[in-house]
Amino acid sequence: MIRPWLGLALGLAASLVACFVAGAYFQHRHATRRLQQLVQQDPYAYYISPKIFNAFCFFAEQNGEVHRVRRIMKYGFPGLDDVRIYSDFVLSYDRRNRVAHWVCEHLQQSNLLRQPGVGRASATYRPDLSVPSTFRAALADYRHSGFDRGHLAAAGNHCSHQLHCNETFFLTNIAPQIGQGFNSGAWNKLETYVRHLTQRFGSVYVCTGPLYKPRQQSANKWSLEYQMIGSNMVAVPTHYFKVITIESKLPLGKPYMEAYVLPNSPIPQKLTLRDFLCDIREIEHYAGLQFFDGLRRSAIFGSNFPSESQVFRDFL
Amino acid sequence: MIRPWLGLALGLAASLVACFVAGAYFQHRHATRRLQQLVQQDPYAYYISPKIFNAFCFFAEQNGEVHRVRRIMKYGFPGLDDVRIYSDFVLSYDRRNRVAHWVCEHLQQSNLLRQPGVGRASATYRPDLSVPSTFRAALADYRHSGFDRGHLAAAGNHCSHQLHCNETFFLTNIAPQIGQGFNSGAWNKLETYVRHLTQRFGSVYVCTGPLYKPRQQSANKWSLEYQMIGSNMVAVPTHYFKVITIESKLPLGKPYMEAYVLPNSPIPQKLTLRDFLCDIREIEHYAGLQFFDGLRRSAIFGSNFPSESQVFRDFL
Repeated sequence: MIRPWLGLALGLAASLVACFVAGAYFQHRHATRRLQQLVQQDPYAYYISPKIFNAFCFFAEQNGEVHRVRRIMKYGFPGLDDVRIYSDFVLSYDRRNRVAHWVCEHLQQSNLLRQPGVGRASATYRPDLSVPSTFRAALADYRHSGFDRGHLAAAGNHCSHQLHCNETFFLTNIAPQIGQGFNSGAWNKLETYVRHLTQRFGSVYVCTGPLYKPRQQSANKWSLEYQMIGSNMVAVPTHYFKVITIESKLPLGKPYMEAYVLPNSPIPQKLTLRDFLCDIREIEHYAGLQFFDGLRRSAIFGSNFPSESQVFRDFL
Repeated sequence: MIRPWLGLALGLAASLVACFVAGAYFQHRHATRRLQQLVQQDPYAYYISPKIFNAFCFFAEQNGEVHRVRRIMKYGFPGLDDVRIYSDFVLSYDRRNRVAHWVCEHLQQSNLLRQPGVGRASATYRPDLSVPSTFRAALADYRHSGFDRGHLAAAGNHCSHQLHCNETFFLTNIAPQIGQGFNSGAWNKLETYVRHLTQRFGSVYVCTGPLYKPRQQSANKWSLEYQMIGSNMVAVPTHYFKVITIESKLPLGKPYMEAYVLPNSPIPQKLTLRDFLCDIREIEHYAGLQFFDGLRRSAIFGSNFPSESQVFRDFL
């Protein structure tokens, strides 16, 4: 008596499961196709597409880690001159000035977890031999120059692996900085501020680089002047910039961006970081770089961010 | 009686032709493979590979015109920053200085044949709108600046088509030059010399660009200073360079290269071009460019060229 009922029930269950799977598969195909269309049309969706598909994946295999260059350069390349890829940062090298054009990092809390035994004590400054010798800075250029070997990607941002830390000591990531009152003063404060943001918001993108700002000689007359050190003539930038993008923790929250320009000179202690906030377009103009290429700027200056003053109040 | 002889003769002829074709084909395959190996191993052979295969082609179809970028850039790209391709020249644009890094041309006698009605009279200076507005020079920047709008790729080198001539008037190909004594003096003499070489040797490659040379302030102290004009801050180079490569007319003759650096200032009439001959490595050092990347320099400074002094004697 049980047999036919069981057969019927099993058959029904099987067909129901089959229908369910077919339906889910159809919906998955349909949604994937629509997401794909969105990614093709919207540059912003394109940038976050790995995350979209990863979050959505059910039938396909989980993709694991996004390639690190794609991760670090998520918001686009500011420029494309002589791009060099390291383990935890990416930079563009200026062969004429022997200093980077820009250095991009992506900071997460995991970057800042100092592993035991890892640190700058065992790292040494050294030239990157993959740069042709004509365009390479040497240790001797900095010696007795009166300038610090200043990090662009800060060593303190990369202390989770010794390799990452060592790579920040390549001279491609180093630029001449005034020591007293800049590298050990306001610039250090700015680097600490970036790490503070990372601890608090979880994901921060930093782009750091030199600026060569002209000075007004008279009405309508501008001129640019900067020193060069050593026999390889390493340029001494007049200013340094940092463009910081903070990703929101809120679901679908927009990223928030701010930019700082500090003069490469002793900065009085009484000035706060806030005094050096700067319009991103000024940096683009003087550096010849373009940030968030292809993205509407309005999509970046989100309004969901806790009011600027509050972040500052917490930090300073 | 004739029939069997004819059959035999025809059969013999056919098999001979077949053997000949088979032999030729075998030799062709064999030689192609060896040439391919050569092209893979030797960078110089690689650069001339289109010519080698074109000259050698028998079974394959004739390839016609080599792509113009491949033709103009035959000796490699001096740098790769923001490369822009025009009809008869290729340039790399410096977004920070709003002046090109370099402009490359390939001159043949056909370039210099002035077509009736073609000329600079109907060309106008205008900005290249494909450059983002932040990095673009404008006509207003040059107005009342005291500097000429100097051509890098000379207009006189591109008078076979009006389009080619017009494109040399894009502001991407223009840089601020001192008028009296430079643009209309020594620089003009250098451009005329290049055209003279083209008439005489048939194929000349020219790479032109600005230099920003530092000056020694004191022992061990160098500094770089240059003016910037207009509201877009177009840099005024301190010097201009030309790297000239003359191809030999002799079979298998090596190309011959020479380089000139002229200061962007009034140059006394009594000086000859020869006074401005310069080591190519000096240009590479100051401009951050690399000429003939991947080629042994010794392959370029051929000894088959008529002695340098004779070329000069003919011209000056």
